[in-house]
Amino acid sequence: MIVEPYLLYLGEATDPISIKTARGVAQWRPGSVVGQRRLPGCTVDLDVPDLGYSEAVTAGARTMIIGDANAGGVLRNSAHAEIIAALEAGLDVASGLHQRLRDVAEIRETAQRLGRTLHDVREPPSDLDVGKGFPRPGRRLLTVGTDCSVGKMYTTLALEREMRARGIGANFRATGQTGILIAGSGIAVDAVVSDFISGAAERITPARTDTAWDLVEGQGSLFHPSYAGVSLGLLHGAQPSALVLCHEAGRPHMRGLPGRAMPDLAECLATNLAAARITSADPIFVGVSVNTSNLPPHERATYCSKVTDALGLPCQDPLIDGVDLIVDRLVSCFERSQSAPNASRSGNHSASRVA
Amino acid sequence: MIVEPYLLYLGEATDPISIKTARGVAQWRPGSVVGQRRLPGCTVDLDVPDLGYSEAVTAGARTMIIGDANAGGVLRNSAHAEIIAALEAGLDVASGLHQRLRDVAEIRETAQRLGRTLHDVREPPSDLDVGKGFPRPGRRLLTVGTDCSVGKMYTTLALEREMRARGIGANFRATGQTGILIAGSGIAVDAVVSDFISGAAERITPARTDTAWDLVEGQGSLFHPSYAGVSLGLLHGAQPSALVLCHEAGRPHMRGLPGRAMPDLAECLATNLAAARITSADPIFVGVSVNTSNLPPHERATYCSKVTDALGLPCQDPLIDGVDLIVDRLVSCFERSQSAPNASRSGNHSASRVA
Repeated sequence: MIVEPYLLYLGEATDPISIKTARGVAQWRPGSVVGQRRLPGCTVDLDVPDLGYSEAVTAGARTMIIGDANAGGVLRNSAHAEIIAALEAGLDVASGLHQRLRDVAEIRETAQRLGRTLHDVREPPSDLDVGKGFPRPGRRLLTVGTDCSVGKMYTTLALEREMRARGIGANFRATGQTGILIAGSGIAVDAVVSDFISGAAERITPARTDTAWDLVEGQGSLFHPSYAGVSLGLLHGAQPSALVLCHEAGRPHMRGLPGRAMPDLAECLATNLAAARITSADPIFVGVSVNTSNLPPHERATYCSKVTDALGLPCQDPLIDGVDLIVDRLVSCFERSQSAPNASRSGNHSASRVA
Repeated sequence: MIVEPYLLYLGEATDPISIKTARGVAQWRPGSVVGQRRLPGCTVDLDVPDLGYSEAVTAGARTMIIGDANAGGVLRNSAHAEIIAALEAGLDVASGLHQRLRDVAEIRETAQRLGRTLHDVREPPSDLDVGKGFPRPGRRLLTVGTDCSVGKMYTTLALEREMRARGIGANFRATGQTGILIAGSGIAVDAVVSDFISGAAERITPARTDTAWDLVEGQGSLFHPSYAGVSLGLLHGAQPSALVLCHEAGRPHMRGLPGRAMPDLAECLATNLAAARITSADPIFVGVSVNTSNLPPHERATYCSKVTDALGLPCQDPLIDGVDLIVDRLVSCFERSQSAPNASRSGNHSASRVA
């Protein structure tokens, strides 16, 4: 568990894309961020106080998050001395980079000497077991996608926010590095040895007997030939009773694979439901979350209406519309009855299974 | 690549199950085995000459294969001195155990000093890339299963033997530790980081422009909640045009999961074909390979006939009947035309797609 509050390290970043992890933490956990640390030359800004390391500690910071990722996922050399200074000032340090903090000798040794914790969040636990698929109590929702990078993390966090605003218990369960830094815990499932994919998903969503939901961040797509194995293991391990399909309207081809068509939405629903039934007795979709930024503004509402008509599911762009209609559907399917988790549900399930 | 011929190390083994890797090599590559090395107390026997290390080298051995696996996949302490003696005598050493040879300091240092090679075959290559799913030339067959441990490796090797006996080019492509020791190369896909499952399968079956077949050893099952992610990534990466379904008749439940029913064979065919179509244009099943050892002898032929009638596919127990009918079907679907790989095929494909 990564201890809050955070100082966000932006270093010498000039590319807004390179600080997307830091931006995600600032956006989704604003109450957990005391400030940012920027070096001379840094041209990006998260609109939080600029702090040095002692100032950050004085302001209550407990952990510095490395929020600047270059293309190779490697620490810039300029970061080494900064991380050591942060450790010296009293901060733990967390990173989602491929290069591990503890593989840099001077960083590892400084942390050991001072008793600080280094969090390399892409590194999976060493004691994972294979998944078992045994039915377990608890309410679990998983976001799945037509493709990679279609807004699964964003949608899952938006659902958490909307549900909490309504007083419905909900916990975001992270499966990727940015999500883990936002949540403060989780497992990067794409970094797990393949025998343990579903076991990792079971680990982050253990049996729960309250009525709150685990909202599991999806990864990849059953239709992406690079990553479908990860998506399937995550689907089996998460054992979801509710699913939300994420999509980007107007995307010309599957990510990174020119010429490979995007899957049909209805086929995507059916394929995910069939696979989900391996471990979940009665999974249903409760909505479609679409990134409509490729569409002209006047076509967005029409696009979502057409999806709703075709699939019988609420469809929203979470960035523009929020996810209230999707949560409405979730509530109507699962919350109406005051029964315990996994008891039989009332509600119009067949309608949401049209596709 | 592991260099032949082999000396098979059985150590102090007393359990026939514990030497299944060594038995597999002796059974499927008899021409590559010069002998076995047994210590006092060993009660199992592969019916090959008992040799010491210098005798083995004199007989031509180049590599010693650790053929004795205890439950934890860890080297017995008695093996350390033996492995060092083998290295001193001039042998490389190959192991499929979880514990890596090179993690034992005295073994690693001896090999380094003498310039010998240690093969830890469960260790994947460090330079794997993600799979791309781009269509590539070549004839590829993959064995898939209703469950784990239903004879996929055995069936794949039996197909190789039968096809070679008919003069059809065929290469077994290994995806598990025993298979790798039999083949002399391959990748243990269940040990690969999950992002690279399909990439590992693409690596072991690169584009080929001759008319020979790559016969890919399957792993797990799309229906096994522990390992389906591995199975799906392997299916996408192998990009097979032909598939063989493997099954064990009368198995009471999915392996390791009491209470979980085995999947229906027809559903298993349909699910694998749907998933295979993500990367393969026109995949078909050419047969069903069934381990019938749980059935009374007089029921075995009837069982296979019923499967054939229900699915429209040849069905054989490879241990009893061989796999000739399955190869007949493969030939009738793919070999009749003398066209280049991936050209359109003649033959009755629809019949084999009934299920």
